[in-house]
Amino acid sequence: MSTIKKTPTTSLCTHTLSSLTYRNANLVDDLMGKATFTEVMLMQVLGRKPRPVDLRITDVVLIVLMEHGLTPSAIATRLIYMSAPENLQGAVSAGLLAVGSSFVGTMENCSGLLDRIIAAPDSQAEAMEIALHYKALKLPVPGFGHHLHKPVDPRAYKLLEIGRDEPDLKGDRIRALEALSKAVDEVAGRPITINATGAVAALLGEIEVPTAIMRGFAVVSRAAGLVAHIVEEQHDPSGRFIWDTVEKAIPFVSPSEADKP
Amino acid sequence: MSTIKKTPTTSLCTHTLSSLTYRNANLVDDLMGKATFTEVMLMQVLGRKPRPVDLRITDVVLIVLMEHGLTPSAIATRLIYMSAPENLQGAVSAGLLAVGSSFVGTMENCSGLLDRIIAAPDSQAEAMEIALHYKALKLPVPGFGHHLHKPVDPRAYKLLEIGRDEPDLKGDRIRALEALSKAVDEVAGRPITINATGAVAALLGEIEVPTAIMRGFAVVSRAAGLVAHIVEEQHDPSGRFIWDTVEKAIPFVSPSEADKP
Amino acid sequence: MSTIKKTPTTSLCTHTLSSLTYRNANLVDDLMGKATFTEVMLMQVLGRKPRPVDLRITDVVLIVLMEHGLTPSAIATRLIYMSAPENLQGAVSAGLLAVGSSFVGTMENCSGLLDRIIAAPDSQAEAMEIALHYKALKLPVPGFGHHLHKPVDPRAYKLLEIGRDEPDLKGDRIRALEALSKAVDEVAGRPITINATGAVAALLGEIEVPTAIMRGFAVVSRAAGLVAHIVEEQHDPSGRFIWDTVEKAIPFVSPSEADKP
Amino acid sequence: MSTIKKTPTTSLCTHTLSSLTYRNANLVDDLMGKATFTEVMLMQVLGRKPRPVDLRITDVVLIVLMEHGLTPSAIATRLIYMSAPENLQGAVSAGLLAVGSSFVGTMENCSGLLDRIIAAPDSQAEAMEIALHYKALKLPVPGFGHHLHKPVDPRAYKLLEIGRDEPDLKGDRIRALEALSKAVDEVAGRPITINATGAVAALLGEIEVPTAIMRGFAVVSRAAGLVAHIVEEQHDPSGRFIWDTVEKAIPFVSPSEADKP
Repeated sequence: MSTIKKTPTTSLCTHTLSSLTYRNANLVDDLMGKATFTEVMLMQVLGRKPRPVDLRITDVVLIVLMEHGLTPSAIATRLIYMSAPENLQGAVSAGLLAVGSSFVGTMENCSGLLDRIIAAPDSQAEAMEIALHYKALKLPVPGFGHHLHKPVDPRAYKLLEIGRDEPDLKGDRIRALEALSKAVDEVAGRPITINATGAVAALLGEIEVPTAIMRGFAVVSRAAGLVAHIVEEQHDPSGRFIWDTVEKAIPFVSPSEADKP
Repeated sequence: MSTIKKTPTTSLCTHTLSSLTYRNANLVDDLMGKATFTEVMLMQVLGRKPRPVDLRITDVVLIVLMEHGLTPSAIATRLIYMSAPENLQGAVSAGLLAVGSSFVGTMENCSGLLDRIIAAPDSQAEAMEIALHYKALKLPVPGFGHHLHKPVDPRAYKLLEIGRDEPDLKGDRIRALEALSKAVDEVAGRPITINATGAVAALLGEIEVPTAIMRGFAVVSRAAGLVAHIVEEQHDPSGRFIWDTVEKAIPFVSPSEADKP
Repeated sequence: MSTIKKTPTTSLCTHTLSSLTYRNANLVDDLMGKATFTEVMLMQVLGRKPRPVDLRITDVVLIVLMEHGLTPSAIATRLIYMSAPENLQGAVSAGLLAVGSSFVGTMENCSGLLDRIIAAPDSQAEAMEIALHYKALKLPVPGFGHHLHKPVDPRAYKLLEIGRDEPDLKGDRIRALEALSKAVDEVAGRPITINATGAVAALLGEIEVPTAIMRGFAVVSRAAGLVAHIVEEQHDPSGRFIWDTVEKAIPFVSPSEADKP
Repeated sequence: MSTIKKTPTTSLCTHTLSSLTYRNANLVDDLMGKATFTEVMLMQVLGRKPRPVDLRITDVVLIVLMEHGLTPSAIATRLIYMSAPENLQGAVSAGLLAVGSSFVGTMENCSGLLDRIIAAPDSQAEAMEIALHYKALKLPVPGFGHHLHKPVDPRAYKLLEIGRDEPDLKGDRIRALEALSKAVDEVAGRPITINATGAVAALLGEIEVPTAIMRGFAVVSRAAGLVAHIVEEQHDPSGRFIWDTVEKAIPFVSPSEADKP
């Protein structure tokens, strides 16, 4: 058995027979009827009382990440809900497992690049080095490009506009993203859109959300979106239709034929 | 292959190259920077513009369901996070799978009882019939009793107080819960607390959340709570300590010994 | 805090610095290189050394439940794998969440009916009562009928044939299923196929798998099937194609239009 | 919408009203009653008829990965099962989400190192370069060391012994692991045990399981182990005990105190 040096502690919540405490707030007296969901979520995640600007940025980020129609996560949730309707939480959990590296997770990688640009003595030179590095790898720069929104991702531009209009933000992460965008365009020889996850990375960074927890905001927001998909599935079920459609669309090829050139 | 009679449709979200629409709102123009998370979540889930009272009730419900310390869901999330830290969404999903019938799911069963009481010609008689039925089964009435909060669940009383103070609510579900509470106390011969899930069932019913989707509010709220547990795990890891503690606390008994009387 | 009366124990596995024990077998000396997966799985699940007939029945059940092409579980796994390829276990977990009440879970309900028929003084009368009960509810009897296999589910007949050929099985559950089948046909006025989950319920019952754990056999078997779907996804990705196909097949209808009669 | 160049196909399974085909085998005629679970799983995963040696290696690997007592995955499964007992598949899924990078996933990283050693002109020099690289990073070499098994992991040595005794295996991956082990010991200045995931990586590689799918074998095996934990939970519930134990063991520290030095 490994030796544990130190007993861990928690500061999130405690309870007695007659009370609950979230950090140092009494749930009943200090929060219920007084605070919004966004406020309490931020208080718990950031470990400090959120400022009004923190709430505004979080709300806009959560709204933006909530929906994109019949995405892989929504399709998975609908199929699992059809299979186990007694188990709504399982359907949402299945969909949330899609919040991975391919789409939303690029937020973290983009935020890591912004960290580098901010830390560098010459931010534009650092941005150019990053852009050239991805060019050499023939990979998109995290936070740039979108297969469904061209030439620009409308969410990204609005997010950045909202961020720039907030006087209480330092603005260094937005400027780092702008530097990166300039370098990406130059290296590509044409404008490449900043996408929603890129702009989200900059804005969450501005309100001091650590890179390693950013994906959690997508999980919370998408959970709400997936619950709405289940509501729709209850009224107008699509699961069986999706199953039939996919099964018909993807033909079976017997292995011997599949091996043919 | 089964025959699908009708193509399903969706009204949640659509997109073009340059825009996103949530129901009939333009995401960029109508929602971003103008609406809160709670507002957009309710709009998507209820399919209508939420009233201020809907937002107040939803916020207080989401806050109440967010945290209860080191619950089964939080422990599961922490253990999975330790095992696969590259995969934050998996850790949250694992914890959300605990939002099942044993604890939170009683919300749905309680809401179903409130439906029956409201539909009955004599609500108090119906409430008494329900209370006697569960007594005969030696089961707790869904929405009543709590193993950690005695004699009263402080959250439930505050929730109901907030609900009663809202002039725009009909109040029929709160009254149905009161009728049920009276019957439960009478049958038990002592006061049994209304618990948080019972009060949540009444309040979500008051704002027209269907019984079958109520559990979804717990999923969203708990997702936020679990993200905060992951933040704490990043700073003060408990996973290995939990593993060691549990392994030491539960002894191995070899099968032959286990069979001994 | 609730009072725990008794410390739970485990008899599944223990370890020292230099050994592992599964129940009362030394992993290295007694099992590795000597036992098959099916054998050790059954030993752990049933808590006894499996007989050859137990292994044969388990193998055929696990094979039958492994695959059915592009099912909801396989589609979910493929979509999640595309979204988070770094996280194979999340893709399998998402698909396994489909092993719920709608399809596989009927196994448990069917097994519960077989219990009732065996316990009844007149098994054929009990079977008829069950068949009439479901007829009145206009619901299919669990274990009967299949939307893709008509008029007979070929797996079910082979499973029962294999079961009948095993002299070491008591045969009471197979006979109970036959009694139920006779009653179902009579009530329907035409033959209704026993489906794979019905036959699996009978066969797992014959080898003393408790009803409440039967679904676990589907989970294990389907896990293997889903891993094969991921292999295929690695060579010939379908996730993006499924996404596009579903998105095109399900039209967006704006809420105002959706409300039209 | 992105353009899909090519319709994907599947070769895993197809069905007609009266038959099922797994690859090019008829399920009823060719497999049921004739093949074991391990055989059909391998046929589906590898896309070829498995040899006897493939079955022996797979069985021993699946047995070894099945159990290690009250691990994070088993604890998560037990807690989720307590919370949602109607949903066995959710409890198993939660536990499987622990099959991530920290423990089992090292299998993949180790297998990648074996690939490099085999491809190198001088395998021992390559092994030394790898060992020095991890030394410089102060990280353990994937597949080496174990916090619970010291000085040697008994499973690893037995696995390698079984592998060496198989004349039909090429042996190149076992030799690559031996070369790496020699280098690791030399760099450490003391013997470091090859652990179970290191030996599993070598053995699965010997039977041509691609590195990127190895984790799937752990998922299948662990699914069986977790089902056995649920059986035990049904007879001797530990969930509430684990909850209480963990909650008592990890103290709440109010944030202001937590900030103190």
